[in-house]
This record gives sequence, structure tokens and C-alpha cells, in this order.
Amino acid sequence: MTEREPAASDFRVGSELVVRSIAGVPTVEHGDDLFEIVVGALERAEIDLRDGDVVVLASKIVSRAEGCFVDLGSITPGETALRLGQEVDKDPRLVELIVRESIGVSRKTTGALIVRHRLGFVSANAGIDASNAAPRGAAPSSGPWVLTLPRDPDASAAALRAKLTARYSTNVAVVITDSWGRPFRRGTVGFALGAAGLPVVWDRRGASDRHGRVLDATESAVADSIAAAADLVAGQADEGRPLTLVRGLAFAPSDESSKALLRDPEDDLYA
Amino acid sequence: MTEREPAASDFRVGSELVVRSIAGVPTVEHGDDLFEIVVGALERAEIDLRDGDVVVLASKIVSRAEGCFVDLGSITPGETALRLGQEVDKDPRLVELIVRESIGVSRKTTGALIVRHRLGFVSANAGIDASNAAPRGAAPSSGPWVLTLPRDPDASAAALRAKLTARYSTNVAVVITDSWGRPFRRGTVGFALGAAGLPVVWDRRGASDRHGRVLDATESAVADSIAAAADLVAGQADEGRPLTLVRGLAFAPSDESSKALLRDPEDDLYA
Repeated sequence: MTEREPAASDFRVGSELVVRSIAGVPTVEHGDDLFEIVVGALERAEIDLRDGDVVVLASKIVSRAEGCFVDLGSITPGETALRLGQEVDKDPRLVELIVRESIGVSRKTTGALIVRHRLGFVSANAGIDASNAAPRGAAPSSGPWVLTLPRDPDASAAALRAKLTARYSTNVAVVITDSWGRPFRRGTVGFALGAAGLPVVWDRRGASDRHGRVLDATESAVADSIAAAADLVAGQADEGRPLTLVRGLAFAPSDESSKALLRDPEDDLYA
Repeated sequence: MTEREPAASDFRVGSELVVRSIAGVPTVEHGDDLFEIVVGALERAEIDLRDGDVVVLASKIVSRAEGCFVDLGSITPGETALRLGQEVDKDPRLVELIVRESIGVSRKTTGALIVRHRLGFVSANAGIDASNAAPRGAAPSSGPWVLTLPRDPDASAAALRAKLTARYSTNVAVVITDSWGRPFRRGTVGFALGAAGLPVVWDRRGASDRHGRVLDATESAVADSIAAAADLVAGQADEGRPLTLVRGLAFAPSDESSKALLRDPEDDLYA
């Protein structure tokens, strides 16, 4: 997380945004190079990255490349997991993993633990994914397999961004997304699990409206909005379209990370 | 809110989405016809609506057309508003209005009341907008003016959709958006305050993943994602770009409203 407060001029709103799902991403396996995968898919789609492009990756392919597979058959739940698992009626081995990936439980309900993930955000079941989660060559007798979130999505985004910026000699950003189930509202939306290269929160405080009145609280969660937009074309289940290009934004390079989107728990009225 | 559960086939994910801000929307005043304003802007932009297009309006222009202006100078705060105003250090006249627009207070903090709005959603200060809020011809001695949310955004969306569908002889949807400040996360995102014509929540429960495993909890908040995407091009302050076209989705007509996005307070772990 950077100390720098981005100025309003760091981010400009274009009048047209294209949100394009890039086809042809193979099933990603442990050890695969995401840079090669992204470049290969862009080349097949005949896309040259331009200044201001945002490359959006579903966290699932980052997790798979990093080998974040866990065989629940190999997990022995501890006392806490056994107790919580009974309380919320959930596989105690999965609960053990949720607890290991978290720094605190926020709420409990049948089938779900709402936790503060070790990465700092609050969501259901620590973002652990139990669909499409088996690694290549998994023994038929193994599993069930689940996939944990990437170890450090901001670092993964920054590494990929550095390579893409060098390859295309231009200023691009990378956002790694996951699905978020929100308080108060039904359904999930995409959110920025990791980010590199763009002002993640667009700080409009101090800007004035058309009548010259100073806006008192206008910070726009740009990276989350990008993630939500990408989610509309990325699909979620059998589509297998984990790579999206968002084109039409204009922003100065930024060293903000997704951490800029985390509300300080001390300021959080719902923590 | 409809009883119908939309099937997975009601909504298809296109591979490319265009999110385009439509210029040339004048300052909307009380009594203006939103249909005429939208059609005029589309015609100047030489856009014919197509099947699957979503017309997205910032709630502000709907409120202005409906004359939802309030002169705080005319408001006498009651006892509750005086007490709450002192507690959160906020103009008691504005607090009075927030209380009138709400059915309950969820949280309180300096400068903000998080309330359940009469329309059912939870957000800060009942969505009352204190910027760009004066009506045409407001006396210089009047005000400060604020703008409340539209009376029935779903009905406004449905009325506009009916006229657009007739005018363009095609299946379009309308989403009316506002900004939402979320628990846990910094910055606002667009959300669907009103909707008509599209499956608002895309129910993927029962769909299977690529390995045939049934997904147990995948409902996508499509209308909120559309609102978030539109927010990226609509700007928030002096841009004055309240009209956005989202093109590239495919959906069957639906009579769902934005109410489908409201989590039942009884199921809400953060209510």
C-alpha cells in the first residue's frame, strides 16, 4: 500500500469503455507462466496492448498457476474447525482450511463463515473455491480438491504488469478479481483482489461540483468497478473465460495496491 | 418484485461489452420528460437501440425530473433529528429528511447515518444528494437545497423501458443507478437503484462447472455489475454525464425489479 494520495488528475474517465473477454486461455496448471498465457491469448486475439489498458484475470487462474490446490482428504481438522464445522454444518476439513486462511471470524451462518481473510478483506469462506479445483493428474482416489486464493495477489499483479509493460512498451494495469457476496444485497459482484499500475481508489474529495460546491465524500472504488465490469463478460461457471481486457480508461501509473480498497477495521461500522 | 426465478438461459454473457457515455444531456429540471431526453441524446449520438441494450441513468436526473428537490431552509427538525444530528454532528434539518426517507437506522458515525431506506436498501444518509441539487429558478436567498432519491425508481425504469421498447421496437432494459458506500471496502461503486427489463440477479444455482460439479451458490448481481461498469464512464462530479449505454449483453425480457437485489433483513448477517 502506498502512502501517496492520488490526485483527481491521476484518473480520467473516457467516454467509451470496451470490456472484452479474451478467448483461448487453456486450463492453467501449477507452474504455468501467466505472462506467457496472457500474451499468447492476446496474440491469438490479435490485440496489442495500449496505454491505459487494464488486463483483468480471474483469481482462479492465478491460484492454479501458483499451485494453491489442497486435497481435503489430507486435512485433519483441529478442535476449532470441528466445533465451527458442526455449528455451521460444513465439512470440518474445509472449515480448518478457512480458519488457516483467515485472521478472524466476522459472522457465522449455516453453510458459511464470513471471515476476515489473511489478505485483509471480509468475505465468505475465505474465498476458497470448490469448483473446477482439481490439479492435472490428481489421483482418482484423491480429493475432494479445493483451491485457495493466490498467496499475494498484489504481488502477482505487479509482477505480471512489469512484464506486460516491458513487452508492449506501454502503461498498462493488471487487476486480479474474485467474486464478493455483499452484506445487504443478493448476488455476487466482481471485486479487486489484487491490483497494480492504476489508481485503485479515485479520490475526488476536494473536487467541486458544477455549482462550485465542494464534494465532501466522493472516493470511487475504480478497481472494484473494473472487476465488476469484467465479471459481466468473464462468466463464472462453465464458460472458462478468465481473461478480460478493459480498454478506454486513462490513468497515470500508480503504485497503489488492492490494499487501498480495504477499510480500516477500526473505522468499519460492520467489522 | 417478481415471483419468477430466472433460469440460467435467461441471460447470456457476450464476449464484448461496450459501455458508452452518451453526451449532450442537458441539466434536467422538474417536469422534464426523461424519455424525450434519452431519445434526444441517442439521436444526437446517432445511436439506434438494439436488442439487449441497457440504458443506464444516474438517479440524479430521475430525481430532478420528478422534482425531488428539498429546501433545507424549509425543514423543521423534530426531536429525533435534533438528537441524532447532535450525535453524529450533522445538520439536523438534513437528518430530519434522512429519517423521513428511512425505515430504520443501521449504524451511526460522525457525519453519516447508515439507514435502511424506505426503498429497502441500506446506505449512507438515505442517498440524499447535496451537490448540484438546486432547482432552476431557486431564489438566491433559498436553500441549501438537497435532492432526495426518486420516489419509485423501479416504476420510473419500467415506464421509460416501455416507451423505449415501443419507440425502437426492440427489447431493451433500463437501470437507474446510484453510488453505494460499502461495508468493509473503501470507495463507492455504482449500484442498481431501479431496474426494468433484464434478469437483475442471474441465478446460476444448479449449473455445473466444467468438471460436472454442481455449483452450490452462484448468483450474480448482474444489474449491480452493470451499474458499476456505467459508473466508470459516468463520472460523479462536474462531468455531468448521467446517461450511459451498455451494449453486448443478451437476455430474455424479465419483470424482475431492483427489489430482487435486496437481501431479506432476516437473512442478513449485518442488518
